[in-house]
Amino acid sequence: MTTTTPLRVALAGLGTVGGGVIRLLDANRDLITRRAGRPIEIVAVSARDRSKDRGVDLDRFAWIDDTRALADHDGADVVVELIGGSDGPALTLARATLAAGKGFVTANKAMLAHHGLELAQAAEAARVPLKFEAAVAGGIPVIKGLREGAAANAIARVYGILNGTCNFILSKMEAEGRDFAEVLAEAQALGYAESDPSFDIDGVDAAHKLSILASIAFGTQPAFADVSATGVRHVIAADIAEAAALGYKVRLVGVAEDGPGGLFQRVHPHLVPIDHPLAHVTGSLNAVVAEGNFVGRLFFQGAGAGDGPTASAVVADLIDIARGEYGAPYAMPAAALTAPSRADSGERRGRAYLRFTVQDKVGVLAEIAAAMRDAGVSIESLIQRGVTAEGSAIVAIVTHEAPERSVAQALEKLRGSQSLAGQPMWMHILG
Amino acid sequence: MTTTTPLRVALAGLGTVGGGVIRLLDANRDLITRRAGRPIEIVAVSARDRSKDRGVDLDRFAWIDDTRALADHDGADVVVELIGGSDGPALTLARATLAAGKGFVTANKAMLAHHGLELAQAAEAARVPLKFEAAVAGGIPVIKGLREGAAANAIARVYGILNGTCNFILSKMEAEGRDFAEVLAEAQALGYAESDPSFDIDGVDAAHKLSILASIAFGTQPAFADVSATGVRHVIAADIAEAAALGYKVRLVGVAEDGPGGLFQRVHPHLVPIDHPLAHVTGSLNAVVAEGNFVGRLFFQGAGAGDGPTASAVVADLIDIARGEYGAPYAMPAAALTAPSRADSGERRGRAYLRFTVQDKVGVLAEIAAAMRDAGVSIESLIQRGVTAEGSAIVAIVTHEAPERSVAQALEKLRGSQSLAGQPMWMHILG
Repeated sequence: MTTTTPLRVALAGLGTVGGGVIRLLDANRDLITRRAGRPIEIVAVSARDRSKDRGVDLDRFAWIDDTRALADHDGADVVVELIGGSDGPALTLARATLAAGKGFVTANKAMLAHHGLELAQAAEAARVPLKFEAAVAGGIPVIKGLREGAAANAIARVYGILNGTCNFILSKMEAEGRDFAEVLAEAQALGYAESDPSFDIDGVDAAHKLSILASIAFGTQPAFADVSATGVRHVIAADIAEAAALGYKVRLVGVAEDGPGGLFQRVHPHLVPIDHPLAHVTGSLNAVVAEGNFVGRLFFQGAGAGDGPTASAVVADLIDIARGEYGAPYAMPAAALTAPSRADSGERRGRAYLRFTVQDKVGVLAEIAAAMRDAGVSIESLIQRGVTAEGSAIVAIVTHEAPERSVAQALEKLRGSQSLAGQPMWMHILG
Repeated sequence: MTTTTPLRVALAGLGTVGGGVIRLLDANRDLITRRAGRPIEIVAVSARDRSKDRGVDLDRFAWIDDTRALADHDGADVVVELIGGSDGPALTLARATLAAGKGFVTANKAMLAHHGLELAQAAEAARVPLKFEAAVAGGIPVIKGLREGAAANAIARVYGILNGTCNFILSKMEAEGRDFAEVLAEAQALGYAESDPSFDIDGVDAAHKLSILASIAFGTQPAFADVSATGVRHVIAADIAEAAALGYKVRLVGVAEDGPGGLFQRVHPHLVPIDHPLAHVTGSLNAVVAEGNFVGRLFFQGAGAGDGPTASAVVADLIDIARGEYGAPYAMPAAALTAPSRADSGERRGRAYLRFTVQDKVGVLAEIAAAMRDAGVSIESLIQRGVTAEGSAIVAIVTHEAPERSVAQALEKLRGSQSLAGQPMWMHILG
């Protein structure tokens, strides 16, 4: 089983994760050779700036100026892409590599969300591996957990905390009672959030990842366009405090469900019951839950980002390839994936958290309560609290189970009301 | 990639898990065929009693009276062993199956703990799969998580809650403030604990599992004989209450660590800090933590037993085999596994919880404190509480970090003391 023929790797992208992959292969070289049955060796690298100091010795690798040329580099069996971006050089390289009959490993969730099906088809046609464990939840082996670990199960629902930046911000808001903007600014100053944080905090990054998980869990073609995504921008300190008083934590949860009504995919802030494992996921950790019809609830948690964890996932893919243990990227041949129809969220039933910032005047509560009643939404609890310097107060409501359509109707009735200051906040309660 | 040639399975053992495997393959047949690229079909079964009603139709399978003969059953590619027991018919069948050049899938932790290396060598010699995901932590893919998901990492430590019966009992003691014997009796009446519960509650079952995890995590030959195992029999309600007051939960934790001093493997009740994910693992759930040098802390949680979860793991192994995605059972060829030396636990440093049941008389505390001082163990906190009807009280101590040898010396000094009623309890504090 052991062979001395190395698996030869060409590496595109030498940012934090690229550097992490080089450091990992250096640090754990002997162990990886024992585990993989053969050495894994980087033979060529490509990045934008050759002169930049990355803290690793690059002289031992061939330097390729034209990233696209890695695909045809004679010495390489596999290309690892750590450039990022849904299109552009990453996609060009992916297509060229698979067309050249070489394996392709990537951490690029955006590219997979948009072009995963095409790439899987190309990989299967060429009979080469396409692997992307690092694209979802960093170092946590969730792709493998769904594709293989839970493979015997019909999965009813897969969901989780898929963006570490958002979870870091929510955890800090929770621990320190501070508001979003303030914590975001601090996270940016510390380098935990990008200077343009929109991809993270508006839920796009989590939506990319969710679409990949859903495809593997349900045997459906990736359908990123059908993910409804909101982020954490509108969560305020009072939401977290009210949730805590009611026995919940606020988490940005990506949820995918497959049912008779179609495929439902949503990234949205949720109230998570304190006894649910996701409630204990703090800081920049990620976590994924899969619910199978025989295994029950599987829970995976770990570091969702960072050079070490991401490199761990990239190299795990390389070890699978070196061992010859790989197959259809989306758990079944691309041709067997069904085209999903998008489920209508209005039909979904659940409990909702609604928070209104209201003018402190007579009749406000009556107006809100009437809108809820008229839409047929029954109120489980209602708290009105505090008056700010601007003379506004917070009304936080938890509803009984109701169709989302009805909740939307109630909010529609209240639109433009003179009693409300700003947009209401609607969070779903994880059931 | 898709083929219509089924993977043909011979199934030995038709208890709860065997029945679960049949039900699972029936319920998820089409999905499994899509995922595995080919059908997975049971062709023959064997069990002690043919006439017993198991709630599944067995007439469609060949019935083989002599279990050993499944190994030579012409129609089968793989044998699934769900008989149990470290030796006897299970081991005979394992040896015969591998000798016959067929794959072997088992949930039998006891057999692997005792004979895993021999079986891995036989499987590798015959170039056939040997898989045992169901042997550790039921439905949770932890074997895969370590063997593949964390394969890029040097693992410093692997530990977890590996016995659902013990965790169920501890959780119930915690929730209801009751003592061990009472809760055990109830668990037995409910069928959650065996009528002879020793394998579970004395830590033997968890030790079997820990030795398997350690081998895969560290690349060492399985060394079950080197696991030091204690169970939960001597945990009393007061221990759980004192732990809670100090910010801990009591859990039976199996810990394996590989270091310069050798391989350390222990199953013992631990105090787990309330902010550690293992503290939130309640009821009969299992959970495993692996700490890698690049990935950091990975956490896996799910159902550790039961027919559905165990069948899920068995069939996941079959799907890997049907896909052709398998290799060395212990993550590297058996010949590459090193022979571990057993670490001396006396050298370990950690904080300890010590509980003494004492006579309520003058000088008891002085005697305990002197013993600790003489052994060089510094006390972080001490609580004396309550006097029972028999006139005894509880003294609970948490020590500062100290070598375990010193703590053992302190307890040795107190041995036979007239002040103590019964054996002291020593639990390690998970660091």
